[in-house]
Order: sequence, then structure tokens, then C-alpha cells
Amino acid sequence: MLYLGIDIGGTSIKCAFVNEEGTISHPFTMKFIKGAKQEETLIKLGELIRGNVKAVQAEGYEVGGIGIGCPGSINSRSGICCFSGNLGWNNAPVAEMIRQSTGLPTKVTNDANAAMLGEAKFGVGKQYNNLVLLTLGTGVGGGLFLDGKLYEGNEGKGTELGHMVIERGGRQCTCGLKGCLEAYASVTALISDTKKAMKKDKDSKMWDFVKGDIKKVDGRTSFECAKKGDKTALKVVDDYEEYLTLGIINFCNIFRPEAVILSGGLSNQRKYLTDAVEKKLAAKDYGFKRTPEVKVLVSALGSDAGVVGAAALFIA
Amino acid sequence: MLYLGIDIGGTSIKCAFVNEEGTISHPFTMKFIKGAKQEETLIKLGELIRGNVKAVQAEGYEVGGIGIGCPGSINSRSGICCFSGNLGWNNAPVAEMIRQSTGLPTKVTNDANAAMLGEAKFGVGKQYNNLVLLTLGTGVGGGLFLDGKLYEGNEGKGTELGHMVIERGGRQCTCGLKGCLEAYASVTALISDTKKAMKKDKDSKMWDFVKGDIKKVDGRTSFECAKKGDKTALKVVDDYEEYLTLGIINFCNIFRPEAVILSGGLSNQRKYLTDAVEKKLAAKDYGFKRTPEVKVLVSALGSDAGVVGAAALFIA
Repeated sequence: MLYLGIDIGGTSIKCAFVNEEGTISHPFTMKFIKGAKQEETLIKLGELIRGNVKAVQAEGYEVGGIGIGCPGSINSRSGICCFSGNLGWNNAPVAEMIRQSTGLPTKVTNDANAAMLGEAKFGVGKQYNNLVLLTLGTGVGGGLFLDGKLYEGNEGKGTELGHMVIERGGRQCTCGLKGCLEAYASVTALISDTKKAMKKDKDSKMWDFVKGDIKKVDGRTSFECAKKGDKTALKVVDDYEEYLTLGIINFCNIFRPEAVILSGGLSNQRKYLTDAVEKKLAAKDYGFKRTPEVKVLVSALGSDAGVVGAAALFIA
Repeated sequence: MLYLGIDIGGTSIKCAFVNEEGTISHPFTMKFIKGAKQEETLIKLGELIRGNVKAVQAEGYEVGGIGIGCPGSINSRSGICCFSGNLGWNNAPVAEMIRQSTGLPTKVTNDANAAMLGEAKFGVGKQYNNLVLLTLGTGVGGGLFLDGKLYEGNEGKGTELGHMVIERGGRQCTCGLKGCLEAYASVTALISDTKKAMKKDKDSKMWDFVKGDIKKVDGRTSFECAKKGDKTALKVVDDYEEYLTLGIINFCNIFRPEAVILSGGLSNQRKYLTDAVEKKLAAKDYGFKRTPEVKVLVSALGSDAGVVGAAALFIA
């Protein structure tokens, strides 16, 4: 039996079939048509899926269902994307349209939830029962796997882990609140902090790294120059890790998970990032006497986590 | 069938039998013997339970099990109280000793978890599936009821909701961290803030309320004087509610529960407190477009929540 996993991103839609062991096959993608309405996009996607499902069925596979990870505020019960700023979608009946177009059972969840489920079932979290996933990208997304199950909250609208305030009255967040974790631990925040630090230190090696063009600063700039010993870069990275650790401490005390999984762009720093965070965690009184340690891990499935996890909505 | 619920508090142990509808009967209590070792206390408790179980059995009731809510760091799987600063307990084999003494199945959980379960099964939360409980007392305790089940975390050591940092580098908390919710939203914090405000305003009505004796300040002082319109008291209460609301916003975004339940000493302020918090919540961008509202409720079981919830560990 195969299941189709779909990961709706900002610029394209990644699709692949996934078997019961979590192995990917027959991938395909669809680019967003600029300016297309949500219904138009979903009709196109439905047609594309139909063709691909037929193709694998012709190879003799059964297809058990279609799982979709979608950014924004998703009602996973009704399968509606209630709101997505990035996609410009409003009350888009995602599950219903794909179900009608393909005749296959269809489920939808938030994209970070899908990544969480992928890592928990088939990735770095597979031996654990309680996991927190943070996607460190443009924003900070979150997923929760609690007592061996994906947790989604009322109407599937929970686990907005990036919008936990860690600094009352702190930095303005895109959500309207001040001091959210996202305002400090997203790649967007890191880039902004990197630029600020560079403007103050014209001798920083980070200027060479971006060939003098501050517009070329990205999430790697500070990390790569920190590895080369640049003091200003080291400070930027250390501050970043300090904020991220604070967020993780909160999740440790709230959930006491076996592990926190980092994914998204910044998780490419792998052990350079997780070692630093684990060291900072160990130095803090996170929790209480005789509480179990929490591991900080990096996504094993990387950019496939969403597709695998979406399909896993059908895999027990 | 009856179940015995036990709520271990700082100065005494409350016990009562609870039926499958959550109704309490045959209550009894045990005072802590000063200076007694943990084993001594548990032996005494076991004997007391045995006598009371025999008595209800003599009345023709069956007793299905003993549920215990215990403060501190509890391993609910092994039934051990790993550490409780208040009780002075260290690796106390609570479940095992009570089981051996009584011959009845015995379960242990953290006291705030027990209160959470009581409210979720038989109290103000019984129509909901996703709930966060905050006990506003000496500290800030927490319980989570997620997807229709009590969530306890790895080794049962989760849900230390009071130790979520809301103000980086803020007030020193008893746990070693700085800026925890507990350092702002506990009764202890409120009393300290009340005293500070009174020292600055010698004309505040709060001085009359405590008959000029600042040692008499308690969690009611600021609230009762705020109701009478005392400006300084109003400011103390407003600041308190602001902090509490910030903590609740975080839990809304993390869990998107149907409701947050307040219990403990301060919840006696009932609608005076919850109305203010709901108003502050509504004024903030908590969450995102099209996310469901979160109710702020007050414990219905009050000081019985722990006993009822402990017994409910056995009631499906």
C-alpha cells in the first residue's frame, strides 16, 4: 500500500508516494501559478494528483489515501485551510476539493505538524513518545507529538510554538504580540541581528563573506564566520542560541519531552547548533531535581519530513 | 464501586471516597507528624487507609483502587515521589508502600495533575477535550488535559507550567531561572508586589485593610481594596492580571485549548479575575486569524479537585 504525501510550500507543492516503512517514491511537484485563485490551484493540483495516482496504480500499487501538510491556520477536522497569509488562502476547502477530484480519502494538517509526524514516525524521533519540533525558518513553526500521538489542539489550531512570549514587551512579532520566540529565533531575526552587528563592526569577516554586499546576508553568514572565529559573528550566534535555548527550556518544563527536534534552514548547522544549545541547557536550571534530560536533535528527514509526515496521517 | 482519592498537601493529607459520578463520601484526613521520616508518614497513612477501606467495605461498597495526588516531582509510572521540597521527600516509594499496606491497586500523580483530571472529568471542564489548569497559590502549578487525556510528560515530569519564562532576565524564580510565570503570577509574587506598592503609598486603603500591619498582607489585600477603588491596589491587581494574561496567551498559542481553568487561592476572586483576564486576552493578538476563542474559567471543585482527580486516575 502506498500513501500520497503532499507538502504545500510558499513557492511550490512537493508530492511523493510513501510506503508503510516511510520510504519515498514517485515524487512530483507543482509550481504555484502566480495570481491564481485558491480554487484554481486546488483544481490543478487535483488533476496532477489524479494522473500520478493512475500511474502508480498501473504499476500495481494500491493507494490508500492523500495526506496534505499546508501552511497557515488549518482546521484538520474539516480539512479547511482557514487562513494562510503566505498562500493568500482564505477558507480554502483543501481536503474536500482533492477528495472530490481524486476519489481518495484525504486529510489535511498544518505543515509543521506534518513535519513533526514524519520525524516521530520515521525520522530522528522514532524511538520517543513525547517530542517537540521547532522549524527554524522565515518564522518559527512548531509541532507536538505527545504520548505517542500528534497533538493539534482545538480545531487543529494549536502548536503555534513560535508565538510563545519569552520577553515581555520585547521585539515586535509579525503576529501582533511583542517578544515572541519567533521574533528572536527565526532565520529572519537572525539575518536582521547579523546585519545590525555588521553595521556596527565594519572589520567583521562577515563583510568578506557576503563580498561587501549586506543584501547577501542569510542564515549562514553569522554561523560560517563564527566557525572561523570572527568575534562579532560569534556574538551574534551566541545571542541567537541563547534565545533559542530559552524557548527550548520553556518547552522542556511544559512538556518534559524526550527530545526537541530542530528542523528548517538553520538546522543545517547540525551539531554546531545542537551541541551549543545542549551545553546552554545543561548550564541552566531547567526543570527540577530528578527530571529527565531532554535531547536536542536535528531533523533526519530534512526537507522530506513534510511529505513523509503528511502521508503518515494515514499510517498507524 | 468507590475509589479512594488522596490529596497530599503541605500540612495535611486529605482523603475521601469517590464514586463513578465523581461524588465524594466518607472523607478523612491525616495531619503530618512534625519531623517524621517519609517512610513513617507513609506507614501511618497506609494504616489509616486500611481502617477506612475496611469501614466502607463493611457498608457493602467495593473499593476499586487508590489514587494519590502528591506535590513535587512524581514518576507516575513507578509511583515514586522523586523529590518534594515542601514535603522533604526524596525518592519516596509512595505507590508501592500504600499498595503493600492496603492490598489495593495504587496510582500516584503530581497534585496539579490530579486537580486537572478532577476538573476535566467532573468539574468545570467536563465538556471539553483540551484544557490547561493553572493553580495560583504559593507557586504556580499546572496540569494539561489534551485530546481527552491527562498529559504528564516523560516520567510524568512535565507540565511545570509555572516555570515558563515570560520575561527573559526578569525576576528570580525559586527554580533557579529568571522571569518564570510563577515569579509574577503566584500568590507569593502578588503579596510581595502588594507590600512594595503599599510602602510607596502610605495613603493606600490597603493599610487600613491590614490594620496597619504589613505582615497581614495576603492574596486578598490588593483585590479587596481594588474593588473599593483604591488606586494603588487597582494598579497592583492590573499588573498581576497583565502577567497572568501573558502566561495564558502563551498557553493559548501552544495548545489552543477550549478553556484555561484557574484554581488555587486566587481563583476565589472568580469572575472579578476571569472577566479581567478575558478582557485583556480579547485585546491582544493571541493567536491568529480564525483561531477559536479560549474561555477562562474557575475551578468548580475547588479544594476537592485534588481528591476527586486522584480517584479519577481509576475512573475511565
